[in-house]
Amino acid sequence: MDAGADTDVILVGAGPVALFAVFQLGLYGLKCTLVDSLHRAGGQCAVLYPDKPIYDVPGFPRIDGLDLTARLLEQIAPFAPRLHFGTTVTGFAQQPDGRFRVTMTDGAAIGASVVVIASGLGTFVPGEGEPSLEAGPAPGWPLERTKDAFIVDAERFETSQPGVFAIGDACHYPGKLRLILSGFHEAALMTQAVRRISFPGGRTALAYTTSSSRLRKKIEGAVSSQE
Amino acid sequence: MDAGADTDVILVGAGPVALFAVFQLGLYGLKCTLVDSLHRAGGQCAVLYPDKPIYDVPGFPRIDGLDLTARLLEQIAPFAPRLHFGTTVTGFAQQPDGRFRVTMTDGAAIGASVVVIASGLGTFVPGEGEPSLEAGPAPGWPLERTKDAFIVDAERFETSQPGVFAIGDACHYPGKLRLILSGFHEAALMTQAVRRISFPGGRTALAYTTSSSRLRKKIEGAVSSQE
Repeated sequence: MDAGADTDVILVGAGPVALFAVFQLGLYGLKCTLVDSLHRAGGQCAVLYPDKPIYDVPGFPRIDGLDLTARLLEQIAPFAPRLHFGTTVTGFAQQPDGRFRVTMTDGAAIGASVVVIASGLGTFVPGEGEPSLEAGPAPGWPLERTKDAFIVDAERFETSQPGVFAIGDACHYPGKLRLILSGFHEAALMTQAVRRISFPGGRTALAYTTSSSRLRKKIEGAVSSQE
Repeated sequence: MDAGADTDVILVGAGPVALFAVFQLGLYGLKCTLVDSLHRAGGQCAVLYPDKPIYDVPGFPRIDGLDLTARLLEQIAPFAPRLHFGTTVTGFAQQPDGRFRVTMTDGAAIGASVVVIASGLGTFVPGEGEPSLEAGPAPGWPLERTKDAFIVDAERFETSQPGVFAIGDACHYPGKLRLILSGFHEAALMTQAVRRISFPGGRTALAYTTSSSRLRKKIEGAVSSQE
């Protein structure tokens, strides 16, 4: 793990929605680094209710947070995200070339074209036993917000700072529901906005994993090379 | 199956998105009847690519349309939807009491408080071998539309006719992606709008299947009574 290396997209958080964002972004060739204050993936799901059943994830009559996390990690394995755990993002600054420099409590700094905040209801802070939740995302960040979420539009999921997106429980828009399944949708739409930033003039049609041999090779080729 | 009986919500279509809508609506006590021109559930998934792998359903590194359909049918079983197969909805008319009377090619008519169009890319018509797809939803319906979808807002997913909603590939709004996972999100947000119509003044907070014993009993009680 080379936390200092630059990347296409930095995801703040490593819960289910952040994990699925890696898949969507990966389909378009975008490399991701995930940063989380916890020492493992899964976010709230893994800490607040690891073994409590969830009933409303589509296609799973009943699943717990640890199993969902494990399945998402398997799904994104082809895209080999970098995972930077046990540290908290302290801020980001846009550089003269338009890219962001993201700084962390462990002293690391990573450059990225795009920042995606997917830190759920806040940041986990170490404590005795399980980490406790410090509510609300990044209080000092210069982004328009409600009390405990960043305001985004429901088409691109971009915050008031161009190039900085928010998805999952960290975002707010009219009608927002704090459901995992909504976060998955937000990840998919955010990805379309990010790929237009990253590849201006690139292909604009949506490709499907079921019908596109290009996408299928990307997923299956990478999977079989790990087997 | 009593196709003539009245219901809370008529779903036009029985693909994955319509099936998941039954789950969401069921959490709020709303009973559903699904109408589909096919003789089975699953829509496009079951007819156009029944055994082709889909890679982008969150939590499933790889799943085919038949398996996804079977899992969704299991997930909604506690809510016992009525299934009215092998017929096509021809139209709907609002009655003096505000409810809709929905008519079908087999001569049946069903009353419902709300109509939800979830008929994907159109209607399947019988043919030799597999049914063929008649593109575009319900050409004659008096709803604002694009060429092949009904225009909805991205908060309630309501069409230009109050009380008539559209979700999945049958709807269009800015940024719309024709992904199954987006349809799931649309089903969840549509449900919030429908429950406010159906229970004005009712509880407004979202309840979670993981933390609400009321919802859990609704799901598990119904499941265990079927075991």
